[in-house]
Amino acid sequence: MNTTPASQDLHTVRAFDDELAALDALLADMGRRVGDNLTQALAALDGRDRDRAQVISAADADVDALEQAVNETAVRLLALRQPVADDLRGIVAGLRCATMLERAGDYVAGAARRGLAEAAAPPGLSGASVQRMGRMVGDLLARAMRAYLDRDTESARAVWQADIEVDNVHSSLFRELLTYMMEDPRVIGVCSQLLFVAKNLERIGDQATNIAELACYRAGGETLGHTRPKHDLANYASVDVP
Amino acid sequence: MNTTPASQDLHTVRAFDDELAALDALLADMGRRVGDNLTQALAALDGRDRDRAQVISAADADVDALEQAVNETAVRLLALRQPVADDLRGIVAGLRCATMLERAGDYVAGAARRGLAEAAAPPGLSGASVQRMGRMVGDLLARAMRAYLDRDTESARAVWQADIEVDNVHSSLFRELLTYMMEDPRVIGVCSQLLFVAKNLERIGDQATNIAELACYRAGGETLGHTRPKHDLANYASVDVP
Repeated sequence: MNTTPASQDLHTVRAFDDELAALDALLADMGRRVGDNLTQALAALDGRDRDRAQVISAADADVDALEQAVNETAVRLLALRQPVADDLRGIVAGLRCATMLERAGDYVAGAARRGLAEAAAPPGLSGASVQRMGRMVGDLLARAMRAYLDRDTESARAVWQADIEVDNVHSSLFRELLTYMMEDPRVIGVCSQLLFVAKNLERIGDQATNIAELACYRAGGETLGHTRPKHDLANYASVDVP
Repeated sequence: MNTTPASQDLHTVRAFDDELAALDALLADMGRRVGDNLTQALAALDGRDRDRAQVISAADADVDALEQAVNETAVRLLALRQPVADDLRGIVAGLRCATMLERAGDYVAGAARRGLAEAAAPPGLSGASVQRMGRMVGDLLARAMRAYLDRDTESARAVWQADIEVDNVHSSLFRELLTYMMEDPRVIGVCSQLLFVAKNLERIGDQATNIAELACYRAGGETLGHTRPKHDLANYASVDVP
């Protein structure tokens, strides 16, 4: 076959696009797994299911392995293709997105592990609020990933704004748990674990906003910056003691 | 002046080395500021000093700005210099190191904010253990940064191993705080905040080990991987209720 320089260039461009798409596919896979693990973690918490919680903790190793794959792919692309402008920004964003997803995965696994301790909790304790908060951050993370993959800055901005609701739910859950502990010292151990489950969920929401920021950076170099509306009163929460 | 191609090359190499050194200087500055903020946060906790705690929370914005500067410098270097091998690895490591330091800075600011709530605590409560743990992670973070900047894999490995001691101190502090809460419901609010101060300190230790891993990656491409000895029993801690 007679390969002209022009068709070679075209070939190179196509191969590069394929490699960028492969990077996105790895990130999409990571995002899906973190979301699935979160769903499983909430079910384990709800059913006080120790075995399931242990499986999730193990499944986080797959998320870590995917992060490693993203890093290797990105570094290879940087070395071999020496990209500039949009492509360079896409690869740097990919590296950082993988870090955020790995971090979210850690918080999911942490919540599942806390669920092990929580397995002995009295039935019904704060279950509904934790579940609601968990579904909320799972939804935000999925939306952030879609915005990232679709380079959809409008959806990204909506995710970024919505995190304030997660902070509000977190603050009220924090107060609820403190009140339980004051009413009945026997639930102090369990509720302390649930404080951390709630905090981990809130931090998964933070990763969703970080990914939303990356979506904007990737799409146009815009930075939403560190001025995100933050409304987490749990840091300052106090409850009147009886 | 007559510039030969050879001296031009030399000039280019020197300029690139200068830029890499500038990237390291930004990271060193970030590390120093996070360490200083941690020292201030511990002093604020110890002295129950609300004003100082607020200053630290504000100082974290400088750390965030430095992270932004690292990102911009790294992307510019990638675009203009199109580095390969060691240099590429150094820049990618720099990007990730800045993320870890920003994260550590967040945990310091979080600990300081929790200290605001803690300002009403009864004197002496768990102060010594928190201070000891704080100094421990501050020391680990400083050692990790030195190992990173000096490309010293041996010191990096020592930091990576030492984090297990932080986990042990964290577990025992967690139990101590739960015991306080069970003995006296009036300290539940304050001790809940201290649980998070302790957790934030433990996570600063995690960032130190992450940076130690980057030091090895940067020096020789070696990954210490995700098999770090982890011994944090606080996730499972339970205390017998009276």
